[in-house]
Amino acid sequence: MSEKKQIMECVPNFSEGRRLDIVEKIVDAFRGVEGVRLLDYSSDKDHNRSVVTVVGEPIPLRIAVVEAIKRARDLIDMNQHQGQHPRMGAADVVPFIPIKNVTIEDAVALSRSVAKTVGEDLSVPVYLYEKAASSPHRENLADVRKGQYEGLAEKMTDGARWTPDFGPSTPHKTFGAVAIGARMPLCAYNVNLATDNLEIATAIAKKVRYLGGGLRYCKAMGVELQDRKQTQVSMNLTDFTKTSIYSAFEMVKMEAARYGVAVVGSEVIGLIPQQALLDCAEYYLGIENFSIDQVIENRIAED
Amino acid sequence: MSEKKQIMECVPNFSEGRRLDIVEKIVDAFRGVEGVRLLDYSSDKDHNRSVVTVVGEPIPLRIAVVEAIKRARDLIDMNQHQGQHPRMGAADVVPFIPIKNVTIEDAVALSRSVAKTVGEDLSVPVYLYEKAASSPHRENLADVRKGQYEGLAEKMTDGARWTPDFGPSTPHKTFGAVAIGARMPLCAYNVNLATDNLEIATAIAKKVRYLGGGLRYCKAMGVELQDRKQTQVSMNLTDFTKTSIYSAFEMVKMEAARYGVAVVGSEVIGLIPQQALLDCAEYYLGIENFSIDQVIENRIAED
Repeated sequence: MSEKKQIMECVPNFSEGRRLDIVEKIVDAFRGVEGVRLLDYSSDKDHNRSVVTVVGEPIPLRIAVVEAIKRARDLIDMNQHQGQHPRMGAADVVPFIPIKNVTIEDAVALSRSVAKTVGEDLSVPVYLYEKAASSPHRENLADVRKGQYEGLAEKMTDGARWTPDFGPSTPHKTFGAVAIGARMPLCAYNVNLATDNLEIATAIAKKVRYLGGGLRYCKAMGVELQDRKQTQVSMNLTDFTKTSIYSAFEMVKMEAARYGVAVVGSEVIGLIPQQALLDCAEYYLGIENFSIDQVIENRIAED
Repeated sequence: MSEKKQIMECVPNFSEGRRLDIVEKIVDAFRGVEGVRLLDYSSDKDHNRSVVTVVGEPIPLRIAVVEAIKRARDLIDMNQHQGQHPRMGAADVVPFIPIKNVTIEDAVALSRSVAKTVGEDLSVPVYLYEKAASSPHRENLADVRKGQYEGLAEKMTDGARWTPDFGPSTPHKTFGAVAIGARMPLCAYNVNLATDNLEIATAIAKKVRYLGGGLRYCKAMGVELQDRKQTQVSMNLTDFTKTSIYSAFEMVKMEAARYGVAVVGSEVIGLIPQQALLDCAEYYLGIENFSIDQVIENRIAED
């Protein structure tokens, strides 16, 4: 058997969601590159922003991501940018996510290496964030981005607190700055409740989430499903290897019981790592000594 | 996106498990072939038999399987063969199994095409069996193989009942005959019980399996786990798309309850299709509208 192929994901966000010809030119950096696969991209006019999902082996992925950031630098002028979504740069935020045969530490190393190149070769100031952050106050993206593009120049002069990790210590005059970092895959997972009472869904969400004393890697809120006359607890699980989908499901069920509310089902939104669902099958069936390599498709995909 | 890659599995059994140099020569037919991947092979001296697991795209897989059968024809003399396992040919049984982006009908078509080539070009008589069988009395492999190699000549003269589907109507003088067919992937799945009483495990197995009025695609027997002082219901699920793993698990639990016996866990033996486990996660979490394409690894493996 050959060495196992490493797969990293990257979900760069670009501050252009209206001029689709510009978006295509940026996205083209991920097309036709050996070892890189463009999975998805979508543009939002109100946000004036595009989100790209791409996976690949670390080295070719690294090269393609730097190229896309370079194109954003050359094609987007943040002085002209308006949109509802907070943003501070032409490429605004660039997270790397470990998918297969790579660890979060590998994702951190890759994000730092990309950050160095972007800072030094592209002359764009870079903040490392989340798991790659150089300091705890830089972990949270909202804090890093606070003040947005327009406030960058002032922010960067506020002592060493917001000196960029790489690149110049003043904003790039058309790009601004970019946040580059590493995080675990997100699982967007919702549990539907047999009640149309949003207060109940919200109360359950508050008990289940980290902020309310619930699960460590769980964000949650109550949402109305008007068509179905139901509500749901809408969750983001930010590290499924520690806060499992089945834990979130069972905890919603447990909290719902005090209101006499039944759980009618659940849903997985968008993409999800295979292991997150296999963990649930293992839990409910009490499977002993299972390895993901027993899944025949994984054996086929190995080389 | 490119057209989805088709993956078929083949698990040919060869009547040689002692002379490993011969086994290697046969297995070599699956090595270094573009579009074909040798997953596993093992030889049993008592059975004097080797089992190969190989996957691939239908066309290259077809060519490699025919080549392996040809090598078995040229390297094995069934007149010299002795072993505990029933057998009727040098390549004894060759099932094709749909894995990905192929149906059981595709597996039937592929097995018939291989059978035609083996019969006509290699001059080996072929019986189609299981889902590929040309008649209901040929579906069950044990019936097709009854009388074994030594009884073939007589069996073939018994009217039209056992005339081969392809190839000569007399046994090949060193090969014998081969059964080629199609089946769904097997799930070997065991549920462990908190009792060392084999009678209880056997009684539960009899209620859960098809033969005893239980689940349609379930074979089961009670087994002692002496080291653990436990017993288990050892099952083969012959079509997990119809008889699910979670159904088998829940039915064992239900039957065990009448004896006051707890289920302590379960185990998956060997390889298993991803969907078989995803079905369990979907069932226990009540997931709505889930598609296997939401698993990020599947999106990566697409091309």
